[in-house]
Amino acid sequence: MTAGVHVSGTTRLYAVLGDPVAQVRAPMLLNPLLAGLGADAVVVPVHVRPGDLADVVRGLTRAGNVDGLLVTVPHKAAVCALVDELGPAAAVTGTANAVRREADGRLLAENFDGLGFVRGLRAAGRPVRGAQVFVAGAGGAGGAVTAALLAAGAARVAVRDPDAARLAGLLARLGEGRLTGAYAAGPGDLAHAGIAVNATPLGMRPEDPLPFDPADVPPGALVADVVMKPHETALLRAAAALGRPVHHGIHMLQQQVPEYRAFFGWPAQRDAESPQ
Amino acid sequence: MTAGVHVSGTTRLYAVLGDPVAQVRAPMLLNPLLAGLGADAVVVPVHVRPGDLADVVRGLTRAGNVDGLLVTVPHKAAVCALVDELGPAAAVTGTANAVRREADGRLLAENFDGLGFVRGLRAAGRPVRGAQVFVAGAGGAGGAVTAALLAAGAARVAVRDPDAARLAGLLARLGEGRLTGAYAAGPGDLAHAGIAVNATPLGMRPEDPLPFDPADVPPGALVADVVMKPHETALLRAAAALGRPVHHGIHMLQQQVPEYRAFFGWPAQRDAESPQ
Repeated sequence: MTAGVHVSGTTRLYAVLGDPVAQVRAPMLLNPLLAGLGADAVVVPVHVRPGDLADVVRGLTRAGNVDGLLVTVPHKAAVCALVDELGPAAAVTGTANAVRREADGRLLAENFDGLGFVRGLRAAGRPVRGAQVFVAGAGGAGGAVTAALLAAGAARVAVRDPDAARLAGLLARLGEGRLTGAYAAGPGDLAHAGIAVNATPLGMRPEDPLPFDPADVPPGALVADVVMKPHETALLRAAAALGRPVHHGIHMLQQQVPEYRAFFGWPAQRDAESPQ
Repeated sequence: MTAGVHVSGTTRLYAVLGDPVAQVRAPMLLNPLLAGLGADAVVVPVHVRPGDLADVVRGLTRAGNVDGLLVTVPHKAAVCALVDELGPAAAVTGTANAVRREADGRLLAENFDGLGFVRGLRAAGRPVRGAQVFVAGAGGAGGAVTAALLAAGAARVAVRDPDAARLAGLLARLGEGRLTGAYAAGPGDLAHAGIAVNATPLGMRPEDPLPFDPADVPPGALVADVVMKPHETALLRAAAALGRPVHHGIHMLQQQVPEYRAFFGWPAQRDAESPQ
């Protein structure tokens, strides 16, 4: 378990916005880090229904001691319309998972999901350069993962999404961002993938169907999930039962921590590079 | 010092709104209590400038896991215009320090400052019934303290405020609430007070003038402050140096805790009645 955090009148706040929000890991991951850095700051969950996102973002960012927002499903795209500026990954993906207030009061949003995912693959010893990847989901996480994989040198990324307009929009933005190599997945792409990624929310609820069948993935190919809760999703359990190597969703968040630290200007780390 | 609080995705939030907010004691007072009650909830400070109050209240009360607001200077009057319903003490005083969301989504505001103050006097062994009281300040705290003193049987409460309209407004609302015995303080009232209360913010900053001269209070009369930080205000230091008994601001907050618990529906207390 995590150590407790101390809250007083001087404490600075970071809010994690999601719907649902009960599953978010950021408070348990980041609060011990902040405490270890000696920062008087706490990350709290904020449950925001889609119709309330604009009001909640406005209210929180008007508060003088709210220094940043972390944004998760289903708000990663909608939040981009509520800020003044998008960082490069947010501009390409049309989604963001972090918002900070600049000194002049303007709001800047950026997306660190993709960078965290690629860092996670590297930390697990999986080469990205030259890889052939299948990504299920062209939403916030799928776009971020695809853009970062391409920027990191993946050869081809086949993206599948039942929402054709969403998929086309992502491919267009990737092209505008000069990230080439992504395309709409066809029937054979899963069978040729070296890495197959679930970037949909499927797996958060016990009744969800699998985002894809891990039996269709070649033996030796990595089956990766971006869903963090449950830790062992039905997809990863099925893949492991078939002998496929698996990669858990928590890595994407853990490997974003150094990026958050830089983005939010947290003090330099005292101990290890990565939290446990 | 306080024990740390555990924050996860399921944690419910209470926000303390103030400007400034660094001095608020509620997080340190209430978080250990909530932890002791086994509640998965945390009280956090939220710094709100007056022009942003409406936006911040709207944003926070739209969040699904924000279960309540605590409201302090300078927002206690303004918040009343932002809710759907006022409790009886809020209606009389025109100020509130607690807001909760009802099951139907409506917002209810109430003021527990006065009740906390009177409870604090009783706990310190000072009788309120029949007392002659001088109150400096007809704002949020002053109105709440005056109304609760009258409701608890004080004989007369002389209220002083340089803002004549604010003072007249308070006296009119007290009359509408059928609380008789309050009047605008005249020159001799301080010299005849058995209890003299600072209910202004004077004393929060080192450069503040005294709200009244404790030398003008009769020997044996109690000099009380509602300012909580610093604990020893200049007024209380001066009064103590003159040999007057003093009553600290923290009592008003501490003695409100049982009221907050009932208002917000926190679980029944496991151990002692009052937190330390």
